[in-house]
Amino acid sequence: MDDIKTYMQDMGRSARAAARLIAQADTATKDRALREIAFALRVNSAALLAANALDVAAATANGLDAASVDRLTLTEKTVNSMAEGLLQIAQLPDPVGEISEMSFRPSGIQVGKMRVPLGVIGIIYESRPNVTADAAGLCLKSGNAAILRGGSEAIHSNQAIAVCVQAGLKAAGLPETAVQVVTTTDRAAVGELITMKEFVDVIVPRGGKGLIARISADAKVPVIKHLDGICHVYIDDDADLDKAIRIADNAKTHRYGVCNAMETLLVAESVAAQVLPPLCKIYLDKGVELRGDAAACAIVPQMNEATEEDWRTEYLAPILSVRVVADLDAAMNHIATYSSQHTDSIVTENYTKAMRFLREVDSSSVMVNASTRFADGFEYGLGAEIGISTDKIHARGPVGLHGLTSQKYIVLGNGQIRS
Amino acid sequence: MDDIKTYMQDMGRSARAAARLIAQADTATKDRALREIAFALRVNSAALLAANALDVAAATANGLDAASVDRLTLTEKTVNSMAEGLLQIAQLPDPVGEISEMSFRPSGIQVGKMRVPLGVIGIIYESRPNVTADAAGLCLKSGNAAILRGGSEAIHSNQAIAVCVQAGLKAAGLPETAVQVVTTTDRAAVGELITMKEFVDVIVPRGGKGLIARISADAKVPVIKHLDGICHVYIDDDADLDKAIRIADNAKTHRYGVCNAMETLLVAESVAAQVLPPLCKIYLDKGVELRGDAAACAIVPQMNEATEEDWRTEYLAPILSVRVVADLDAAMNHIATYSSQHTDSIVTENYTKAMRFLREVDSSSVMVNASTRFADGFEYGLGAEIGISTDKIHARGPVGLHGLTSQKYIVLGNGQIRS
Repeated sequence: MDDIKTYMQDMGRSARAAARLIAQADTATKDRALREIAFALRVNSAALLAANALDVAAATANGLDAASVDRLTLTEKTVNSMAEGLLQIAQLPDPVGEISEMSFRPSGIQVGKMRVPLGVIGIIYESRPNVTADAAGLCLKSGNAAILRGGSEAIHSNQAIAVCVQAGLKAAGLPETAVQVVTTTDRAAVGELITMKEFVDVIVPRGGKGLIARISADAKVPVIKHLDGICHVYIDDDADLDKAIRIADNAKTHRYGVCNAMETLLVAESVAAQVLPPLCKIYLDKGVELRGDAAACAIVPQMNEATEEDWRTEYLAPILSVRVVADLDAAMNHIATYSSQHTDSIVTENYTKAMRFLREVDSSSVMVNASTRFADGFEYGLGAEIGISTDKIHARGPVGLHGLTSQKYIVLGNGQIRS
Repeated sequence: MDDIKTYMQDMGRSARAAARLIAQADTATKDRALREIAFALRVNSAALLAANALDVAAATANGLDAASVDRLTLTEKTVNSMAEGLLQIAQLPDPVGEISEMSFRPSGIQVGKMRVPLGVIGIIYESRPNVTADAAGLCLKSGNAAILRGGSEAIHSNQAIAVCVQAGLKAAGLPETAVQVVTTTDRAAVGELITMKEFVDVIVPRGGKGLIARISADAKVPVIKHLDGICHVYIDDDADLDKAIRIADNAKTHRYGVCNAMETLLVAESVAAQVLPPLCKIYLDKGVELRGDAAACAIVPQMNEATEEDWRTEYLAPILSVRVVADLDAAMNHIATYSSQHTDSIVTENYTKAMRFLREVDSSSVMVNASTRFADGFEYGLGAEIGISTDKIHARGPVGLHGLTSQKYIVLGNGQIRS
């Protein structure tokens, strides 16, 4: 334990020192490092795949489930898309140093804001080696130092990727300690990482709800977190039913295992008998299990009865809960009670109800006449995302490069003093 | 202890319920409540002063120091300025609902941000009753519910102010539970307030470093904090020495006990012999004690020798530490080592050095040719401030109404689905 503490503190100290240098690196240098890392990943793909094969063999021997082994496995194609991702990050505008809102005050000073890196970012993730390259790229472009701690099953893969990252940093003349990968699989390293406030400015956990809840409970460092995605679509009395069916179908069935998939459909009672039969036929044809309240079950006999627990469940599976509600207020009350404040959408042609929904629903993404599946950094034009925040402090919704920065005040004077 | 927990949890639950209503209140209603509170404070000033007299008598009997008794004491004039402060907050633009950055994406959806309240804000402060009205006003205008816990010495004053606040809320048709004042002086109430994550979204402590450090150490809820203000002025080789003397004088001597006062003066060695004698004469004439490094002491014989501890000290008093440095890099190294990242200023006519200082100094306010005393919500045009943050997450520098809000994403569609 003491060894781990010393190991992590040393890493933290190195990261803090590197953070000052990387914060001042100019755009061209950071972009060059990103391109050099992409190049190193491609040149060393054989070595990466060999390291990954060790992880995959161990995971299989240890009986890891097939889905996890799949996420763990690298191929020529995934190595290539890691490299592509870094080249895309290099193309994004540099957020660091952006100056905004400069205005003169009656005292004669000019005041505004300059965007600055957060400092040192700790990323904790499960056994998806591509996150190592992704997270390194986003932290680097946003001028932050990073400490990356991936799942222990991916340890060889992550170390091989780290070699490429550090080669790229070195080639661009940046400190190799700007991105460090934790090489111990001891869980005490995570405990140290999330509590060493003097060396780490923010923690971004990427992974399942269990991981994130554990980290949030124990962290002393601020955490940008993304808990569950219990997303709703509400089909209003005034919905265009063609749009409603298209959106409710897409929100549920486009992909099942993702956080921005709809888990509960709310339907206004005046249109329920009209919209539920054709919509539920689509779901049933696609093999989606339906769980409804009494009113919904009365309309669609193939539906099972939903329990209270269903409204609180993120299925991440071809299961949908359905509730018939009296009106917009009842829908928003349901959402206020059960939503995880991730993404909720209304389908309506009514202007006033659309505006009320936008204003009153307290979720990180609130939509009108669009599928919840759009809640995503790429779809929003952020270029890339380090995660989606369901918090309110600091960042809310998809977190891109700006979410990894802060703004300081700058004052331009000409000798002004306060009187 | 169990009673306190129940009491605070009930208060939290009421605040959470009120938060949903206050978040949706329109601008006119919130402004009306602010004006009604101001009116109630003025109408009830006799009752306020009587309640305050009880606190002052008890504090005096308990031997509270004179400065604290002074901060605790209300007069007709301070009651009036509390009311004025609320009327000023009513005049500020409403941050809630501000929509920005709306742009169309290739998918056809239009994406942007809407500013929303944080929810429930806990304010913990010492025995300054005016903070009760101030904090209530800022939370109300920004659409947040507030739980206020002032110092126990001000308990009668705070309760009397709370009566006015609640009368104003009621007169405007807003829930009285939108602003609640903790009426127990039991310290366990603070412990509960800063850990009940389900009911409180952020804590803003206002007070001395000890209070803030204690709260930060124990809080489970995010804290917007303001630790010390060890502010620097660096007089560069290329400074206009008239501006330098004016700024360095003002930054130290305009007020001594404030967080944005300069505590350490850094002077480039090539101009030290020229600028220190006239500047230090001003300080000495004003009774400022000077503590310098060897080079500074050699120039100004009345200076005492500074110790390592001096560079790390926020005097909040007529004491100044002075260090002669080789150049800009040495000055920025000193600041990186000793600054509390509050406010630092360079005096220079050199463009490149000014730009480097602005970019590279990692403080919440970074200035060129201006007194550090300008680091203030009113001077920056925020209208009012709930505090100054030396954090990087969420808010940095003076925190006004915007600092008490977040931004959610909004998506305007026309039936779009993800393909």
